[in-house]
Amino acid sequence: MYKHSFFNDYSEGAHPRLLEVLARTNDDQETGYGEDSLCQQAADLIREALRCPEAAVHFISGGTQTNLIALAAALKPYESVIAAASAHIHVHEAGAVEATGHKINTVVTPDGKLTPALVESIDDQHTDEHMVKPRLVFISNASEVGTIYTKSELQALSQTCRRRGLYLYMDGARLGSALASRTSDLSLPDLAGLLDMFYIGGTKNGALAGEALVIINPALQRDFRYHLKQHGALLAKGRLLGSQFLGLFQDDLFLDLAQHANAMAAKLAQALSELGCSFLAPPATNQLFPILPDAAIERLQADYGFYVWQRIDAQRSAVRLVTSWATPEVKVDVFIADLRAALAQAG
Amino acid sequence: MYKHSFFNDYSEGAHPRLLEVLARTNDDQETGYGEDSLCQQAADLIREALRCPEAAVHFISGGTQTNLIALAAALKPYESVIAAASAHIHVHEAGAVEATGHKINTVVTPDGKLTPALVESIDDQHTDEHMVKPRLVFISNASEVGTIYTKSELQALSQTCRRRGLYLYMDGARLGSALASRTSDLSLPDLAGLLDMFYIGGTKNGALAGEALVIINPALQRDFRYHLKQHGALLAKGRLLGSQFLGLFQDDLFLDLAQHANAMAAKLAQALSELGCSFLAPPATNQLFPILPDAAIERLQADYGFYVWQRIDAQRSAVRLVTSWATPEVKVDVFIADLRAALAQAG
Amino acid sequence: MYKHSFFNDYSEGAHPRLLEVLARTNDDQETGYGEDSLCQQAADLIREALRCPEAAVHFISGGTQTNLIALAAALKPYESVIAAASAHIHVHEAGAVEATGHKINTVVTPDGKLTPALVESIDDQHTDEHMVKPRLVFISNASEVGTIYTKSELQALSQTCRRRGLYLYMDGARLGSALASRTSDLSLPDLAGLLDMFYIGGTKNGALAGEALVIINPALQRDFRYHLKQHGALLAKGRLLGSQFLGLFQDDLFLDLAQHANAMAAKLAQALSELGCSFLAPPATNQLFPILPDAAIERLQADYGFYVWQRIDAQRSAVRLVTSWATPEVKVDVFIADLRAALAQAG
Amino acid sequence: MYKHSFFNDYSEGAHPRLLEVLARTNDDQETGYGEDSLCQQAADLIREALRCPEAAVHFISGGTQTNLIALAAALKPYESVIAAASAHIHVHEAGAVEATGHKINTVVTPDGKLTPALVESIDDQHTDEHMVKPRLVFISNASEVGTIYTKSELQALSQTCRRRGLYLYMDGARLGSALASRTSDLSLPDLAGLLDMFYIGGTKNGALAGEALVIINPALQRDFRYHLKQHGALLAKGRLLGSQFLGLFQDDLFLDLAQHANAMAAKLAQALSELGCSFLAPPATNQLFPILPDAAIERLQADYGFYVWQRIDAQRSAVRLVTSWATPEVKVDVFIADLRAALAQAG
Repeated sequence: MYKHSFFNDYSEGAHPRLLEVLARTNDDQETGYGEDSLCQQAADLIREALRCPEAAVHFISGGTQTNLIALAAALKPYESVIAAASAHIHVHEAGAVEATGHKINTVVTPDGKLTPALVESIDDQHTDEHMVKPRLVFISNASEVGTIYTKSELQALSQTCRRRGLYLYMDGARLGSALASRTSDLSLPDLAGLLDMFYIGGTKNGALAGEALVIINPALQRDFRYHLKQHGALLAKGRLLGSQFLGLFQDDLFLDLAQHANAMAAKLAQALSELGCSFLAPPATNQLFPILPDAAIERLQADYGFYVWQRIDAQRSAVRLVTSWATPEVKVDVFIADLRAALAQAG
Repeated sequence: MYKHSFFNDYSEGAHPRLLEVLARTNDDQETGYGEDSLCQQAADLIREALRCPEAAVHFISGGTQTNLIALAAALKPYESVIAAASAHIHVHEAGAVEATGHKINTVVTPDGKLTPALVESIDDQHTDEHMVKPRLVFISNASEVGTIYTKSELQALSQTCRRRGLYLYMDGARLGSALASRTSDLSLPDLAGLLDMFYIGGTKNGALAGEALVIINPALQRDFRYHLKQHGALLAKGRLLGSQFLGLFQDDLFLDLAQHANAMAAKLAQALSELGCSFLAPPATNQLFPILPDAAIERLQADYGFYVWQRIDAQRSAVRLVTSWATPEVKVDVFIADLRAALAQAG
Repeated sequence: MYKHSFFNDYSEGAHPRLLEVLARTNDDQETGYGEDSLCQQAADLIREALRCPEAAVHFISGGTQTNLIALAAALKPYESVIAAASAHIHVHEAGAVEATGHKINTVVTPDGKLTPALVESIDDQHTDEHMVKPRLVFISNASEVGTIYTKSELQALSQTCRRRGLYLYMDGARLGSALASRTSDLSLPDLAGLLDMFYIGGTKNGALAGEALVIINPALQRDFRYHLKQHGALLAKGRLLGSQFLGLFQDDLFLDLAQHANAMAAKLAQALSELGCSFLAPPATNQLFPILPDAAIERLQADYGFYVWQRIDAQRSAVRLVTSWATPEVKVDVFIADLRAALAQAG
Repeated sequence: MYKHSFFNDYSEGAHPRLLEVLARTNDDQETGYGEDSLCQQAADLIREALRCPEAAVHFISGGTQTNLIALAAALKPYESVIAAASAHIHVHEAGAVEATGHKINTVVTPDGKLTPALVESIDDQHTDEHMVKPRLVFISNASEVGTIYTKSELQALSQTCRRRGLYLYMDGARLGSALASRTSDLSLPDLAGLLDMFYIGGTKNGALAGEALVIINPALQRDFRYHLKQHGALLAKGRLLGSQFLGLFQDDLFLDLAQHANAMAAKLAQALSELGCSFLAPPATNQLFPILPDAAIERLQADYGFYVWQRIDAQRSAVRLVTSWATPEVKVDVFIADLRAALAQAG
């Protein structure tokens, strides 16, 4: 048993207030398959938070399922997705997008973020019917390496996409942490104005399960429940997912939980910096990628759970530390103390 | 608002003991994606109940997703599924099986059940590479019209399938109700001996969500988590599903809940019979299909939720009444009284 | 070796005039992938014959490939095809349509033809997102049992489809024989006015290979070459297919060849009638389904190739006799003589 | 009109001897769908040339279709293909492999060839079910940039693949030219010993259409005609493809045609070298990638067809010149003279 696991932000169950919604509504007889009153209330709260009354909101049990359904629904058979080489859909979803028949055209980008120039370079290479036709740009915010998009970056991407007839889709598995970042100037209404589709991640921000897929572009809204059903994503007790987002979008809980995760990460980041550590990517959200001596890593692994991410040189590696809505500050303090000792011993 | 809804068996949340497991384990840090201790304990309990230590058990959020993944994993691209024309996968899953590339070869069967002769008749029609090659037989127990398989019926089907090299798969969305039926002589260990793959339905028997896919045939077990991941069925917090089956398979809760649902249906069925109603299919589980005068149906619909299933003649229709683990006996009594009055008025 | 094979209409190579086009143009350097001058000329001749200058015409190597590409291109993932239970795509294409992800909703129709009422009955059953959504009606002309559509029948189907937002597609593997039938009142321009998409079969009417897919509906024309390429249907030497249709649509060769096939079938049909045989379906095109005593069938099989199609009773079966552009009249005469003898011996 | 087109090796029709086979056998009645005597004889000749009597041989109309069927047949849904970033299946087949559901894992390799180290590096990155599972290595010989594999290179790749349980597949669209290369030490029997599956390209070596897919690995041979039918690749008149390979594998025509193509390329290459041109990749087969001044390119484009492949610097680009079995030596001589003049003027 670890003193604490920093493996990820889905190690614990749900925030108590979300369990309360579940318990409180448990005996009510509700309509099935996402047409219950909990889903409807939650969707209304989200539309309000987005200031976008026309948005379609669907609740789906997990991120991979959300991505594969949303992308497959948006694309014709010969259309492809543009994504970073580090994108979750490219690396860590077991070929789910390709399994729906679509190619992902990737481009290498060290910070995990796409730019208009990168998008255009891929799009320009695809000129005729012997190649796929790029149609959707996939970005993650926060990205897979913990970086975030600024408003101006996102505006530029959005303009490029609209000019070229490309849909812009955001994977928001860690959207709470991105929006709650001290370095972010983006809001939920901004997203509604700049994106065609995106999802608001619940699973990694305190929910038992669930992502809220938001479809802004009316052309993509049509018949969407057919896509959900065909992929087995309409839960008979959709109320389960509705209850989670109902809890998250009452009284700003969604951002509060993300802020806590970020604050815990910031405390860790500051300690790491003060101890002389550098980072693979600048700390911004609840994922940190500090570079540590291998000896220190080995020592810390006896007591803490975390991934070794990437070898840097003969003596050092980058590790990944993830905090969450559930990370107790006292565990962070203990880790920092143990880190200090490990670094001292590692010399 | 209805006095009570008999629309289906997933109108309420979860049985309180399942919510308790969830609450009790909520703060534990667990591994993600179904490799947590709750899923492991639940799988062990299920293997024990099956008396089949070699079975692979996977927890999946819903029935359509379970069916589509299990079938697609078992079949080569040109292989097909044999099923009743009334099968859920054929009628009510939005083409999910075909969306994975496989044809369903259907045969009409009034009681919703397949027989060796029906299976052989379809198999015999497929003789060469200009046609698909049937490879898997899909049955539901309880069936879509509430009927159940006896042990000898299932043995006969199993022998036919093995002789012909066909996999035998059972959709167990309502398996609890089937096994708990007074007319059933099947047990979970019987299923482990006769089937290649099946699922034990949780959603319709008291769980918040979740079906337990059981893979008996070792050839079908290999690399199965890849299939799950590729379809987005590995929940980051797989503990959610594990907790439900942990609760269901402790102290026989699974069968107890099904027995309650069946008892409520039996009480309704007896009253209906005494009032002179006939049934579309003989009552056996928690789904009843009584035939009622349209005037009585209309009267009852003001106070109760249920589906009108099928027109019988100019004056009468069959309706579907579904009870569940959560149906209060008092609601059944009230319904019977109202039914008596409605029939009296309908003359 | 048989005296003659009546197995099918693709037993011989190509009509000599089509081989001549091939030989004559063999040394010309042409652009690849269907953008050569032969394909362009052939497409122009077809548009002229259709009196439809806006039609898109693509040449594809075979019927199954044409059907699967055309249907998959027209449908969204959850949309389905309505077809007769006897339809080639349902029975004899190895699940090609399902392999592209789409369900076929079938209806039994003894003469192999769909009617507005049959189409509506299927369409009406599909009411919500738990089911597929019918979107395209597939018919064959001539049908799989040799029957044909009249103009008024096709007009009625077309109106129903347009009213309901269903595409109407015709498999024209034996379209030549259908249009050349003495009982047909349909013309190529009629098809252009009533259908969204159809193909003109070359393989079964004298070509080495090739079907001409005609897309009338502009919404279905867009980016179609992407679909062709993705399914491997753009031949580098598309000229091969262009040359066949160039030959077929010069000087009415297409209809002349079909008329010959029909005339040979008519001669056979008349002899069969005179000998007292009845037919499974009324003779109309180049496929006959006469009912013969088993003893006579056995005798004929020693010298002739043909399929035994369906058992009728203990003593008799229906067989299929197919004539073609290449059937020599002398072989028909010899067969009739042998048939007369066989029937006499069979008593 | 060009003096000559060097665009590609499929600009002309078929070698006269292949047209002769077609004409000579045209009137014979043959069985359909590749079970005719021409296909059988051609397959026998190929098995003989491979010295591999157990090989399965199937004739398919084009390269993209061959690749997509062969790969999809070999892979389970979650398995992927390892290929060079320049591979035809990755760049120029409109996402055909992904459309069958499979990801292609690519690696950059300047000469278009894979090595054991490159294969291992990709394979090693795929460690669990959150990622696809590499299962098949795709190589092209000649490669997309005209380079070829030596016997020792192919042996090393083959050993790596077998050790790791990876299938080794070769795209042989230009296999004739590769084997006929002066720098090649590979033979057809070598391929049968080192590969699991490959195809012998006919279309780019003198056939009207057709690739011969050779399946060595018995596990991959099973039920293969089902895969062909399902993708629409079984031509009713399979004799068309059989006749082409019958002609190609009689009297060594296959290698003779490739040698002519290579000889014409070699003559061009020598002239280019003597005129001081360098090459993007060393000349080995019938594709040349010389680097020329833009001014010379522009001049030559007035009279000759060829692709500008890649910009090299502000003044120079690489172009692609392709010769074929049909390239007349006199056209090569004229081109060389015009090239000399163009280079002189370009200064």
